[in-house]
Amino acid sequence: MQLVSTYYSDFIAYMEDNSFDKDPSGLYQPVDYIMQLGGKRLRPILVLMSYRLFHDDHEPALPLGLAVEVFHNFSLVHDDIMDAAPLRRGKPTVHELYDVNTGILSGDVMLIKCYEFLLRAPDKLIPALIQTFNELAIKVCEGQQYDMDFETRNDVTIPEYLKMIEYKTAALIEGCLKLGAILAECGTENGQHLAAFGRNIGLAFQMQDDILDTFGDPDKFGKKVGGDILNNKKTYLLLTAQAIADEGDRKQLEKWISSKKADEQEKVQAVTYLFKKYQVLERATEQMQLYQTKAFEHLSQVTAAAERKQELMDLANELLVREF
Amino acid sequence: MQLVSTYYSDFIAYMEDNSFDKDPSGLYQPVDYIMQLGGKRLRPILVLMSYRLFHDDHEPALPLGLAVEVFHNFSLVHDDIMDAAPLRRGKPTVHELYDVNTGILSGDVMLIKCYEFLLRAPDKLIPALIQTFNELAIKVCEGQQYDMDFETRNDVTIPEYLKMIEYKTAALIEGCLKLGAILAECGTENGQHLAAFGRNIGLAFQMQDDILDTFGDPDKFGKKVGGDILNNKKTYLLLTAQAIADEGDRKQLEKWISSKKADEQEKVQAVTYLFKKYQVLERATEQMQLYQTKAFEHLSQVTAAAERKQELMDLANELLVREF
Repeated sequence: MQLVSTYYSDFIAYMEDNSFDKDPSGLYQPVDYIMQLGGKRLRPILVLMSYRLFHDDHEPALPLGLAVEVFHNFSLVHDDIMDAAPLRRGKPTVHELYDVNTGILSGDVMLIKCYEFLLRAPDKLIPALIQTFNELAIKVCEGQQYDMDFETRNDVTIPEYLKMIEYKTAALIEGCLKLGAILAECGTENGQHLAAFGRNIGLAFQMQDDILDTFGDPDKFGKKVGGDILNNKKTYLLLTAQAIADEGDRKQLEKWISSKKADEQEKVQAVTYLFKKYQVLERATEQMQLYQTKAFEHLSQVTAAAERKQELMDLANELLVREF
Repeated sequence: MQLVSTYYSDFIAYMEDNSFDKDPSGLYQPVDYIMQLGGKRLRPILVLMSYRLFHDDHEPALPLGLAVEVFHNFSLVHDDIMDAAPLRRGKPTVHELYDVNTGILSGDVMLIKCYEFLLRAPDKLIPALIQTFNELAIKVCEGQQYDMDFETRNDVTIPEYLKMIEYKTAALIEGCLKLGAILAECGTENGQHLAAFGRNIGLAFQMQDDILDTFGDPDKFGKKVGGDILNNKKTYLLLTAQAIADEGDRKQLEKWISSKKADEQEKVQAVTYLFKKYQVLERATEQMQLYQTKAFEHLSQVTAAAERKQELMDLANELLVREF
C-alpha cells in the first residue's frame, strides 16, 4: 500500500516544477503565493488515488491533480474577495496582500491555466475530461451563488441547503474521483460509483465542517468557534433546529438570527443551547454518517483491488471523525 | 458573396437560442444582461468568415463564435470592475447594476461556459481548439496586467506598448481567425497566415482606437475625446511624442502628465498641441496603415477563393478608416 505522504510529496514536487514564476510578475506572483500557502492537498491526492485504483502508478494523473488544485485555489481567491476575508490559512488573502484587482485578474488566469493542465492528458480523453471539469466548475459557481442568496433569505429549506453544499463543496470532490477514473479508463460503472463515493464524502465533509464550527474544540479547530452562528449562516444545524423546535423556541432562534447588536458570546451561547436542546448535533452527526456509509457502499462496488480501495477509505476515515 | 448582416443575424439567433435564462438567476441574469448590450459582434463574425473561407456554410462555426463573444464579454465585466467603469455601451456596467461580487462570479461562470461551447466542435479538433483558445485567453490576462502596470510606470517603451496591445487586444482577434481555421481544417500554413492577418488587423484596430480618442470627431466617437490624455494613458501617441520631442517639449509633456490638478480642457489642448507639433497623428496613422498592409499581405497568401477573402478585406476596411 502506498502512503498518503507519497502522493502528497509527488504532487508538491509536480506543482513546484510547474510554478508560475514568469512575467508579468504582478499577475503570477499572487498565484504562486496562494498555491504555496499549504493545505492538505486533499483534492489532487484524491485524483491520484482514483487513477491508481486501476494502475500501478499515479504519475500520469499529476496534471489533473494540478488542475483541480489550481481550480480550488482560484475559487478561494475569488471567494475571499466576495467574503471580504482578511485571512486564509492564517496568512493575508491575495486581495489583502495585493489588492482586489490583482485578486480578480490572478484568479482569472488561474482558471484558464486549469485547462492547460487538463490538455496534458492523452488527446482522446480530453473531451470527456474537460466536460467533467466544466460540469464541476459550473456547479461550484452556482453553489457559491446559492450560498450568497441564502444570506438574505429566511425561508431556506434543508433540501435547498443540501443542494447548495452538493454544488459548492461536494461537486469538486466528486469531480476529482471522476477525472481520475476517466484517465484510468476504468469504464462507466466504476466511474459512476467513484463519483458517488466522492459526492457523498464531500457532503459528509461539509456536514462535519458545519458541526465543528459550533461544536468543535476551539484548540483544534482552525477557525473561531461559533462563526457560523454569528454570521447567521443557514447551516444544517440551524435549519434542523428551525424545522423541529417548538413555536417558542423557533421565535427565540429567529430573534437571535435577526438581532444585529446582540453580545457575541451571549448569542453563540443562546443558539448553541437551543441546538443542544433539540439534539441537533446528534442529528447532524447521524446525517454525516449516512453520507459516509453511502460513500463506502459505492466504493465497495468499484471493481478494483481491495488494498487500493482501502487507501481511499483510510483517507476518508482520517478526514471524517465521528466524535465531537 | 454573403452579407455581413447574414453572419450577424445568424450569430444573434444562435446566441439567443443559448441564452443563460436559468437558475440561480442571481448568477445568470447578469450574463444575459451583458451579452445583450449589443455591439458589432465583430469577433464571432470573424470566426464565421474564417471558417467560410474554406466551406460553403458557416453554421458549424457558430459555437466557436459564441465562445469568443462570451469570452470578450467576460473580460469586459471583469475589466469594468478593475477600471471602476460606471458605463458600458451607454448602459450601467454589471457591477454597477448589480454589485462587485456579482460581477466577479458571473464573469467566472462566463469564462467556464466558453469551454462548454468549444466542446461542441468535433472531438478530434477539441485539443487544438482549446489549446488555441487558452493561449489567447492567457494573453488577454497578461495584456490587461501590463496595461495596469503601465499606469504607474514612466519608462514604458514603444516596443513594450506594442506587446501590450498585441496581448490585450490583438490576441483575441488573432484567435478568432485561428479557431475558424482549425475548425475548417485548412492546413497549418493557411492557419498561420490567417492568424497573422488577425493579429495585424487587431493591432491596427487598437492604433485607430488610440488615434480616435484624441483626434476623433466628438459627434461620431462614442467616448469622450481626450480621455486617454486625461488618464495619462501611455498610448502610441504619447510614447511617440515623448520619443521625438526636443528636451523642452518633453519636459512640458511630463509636466502635464504628472499634473493632478490641471484644468481638463487646458490639459487636453496643451497635449494635443504638442502631438500636432510633432506630427504624431501622421506617424500613428502610418503605423496603423503598415499593420493593415501587412494583414492584407498575409490574407493574400491564404489559398481560398478571392471572393471569400474579399469579405474579410471589406470588413477590415469598414472597421479601419484612413482619415481622421
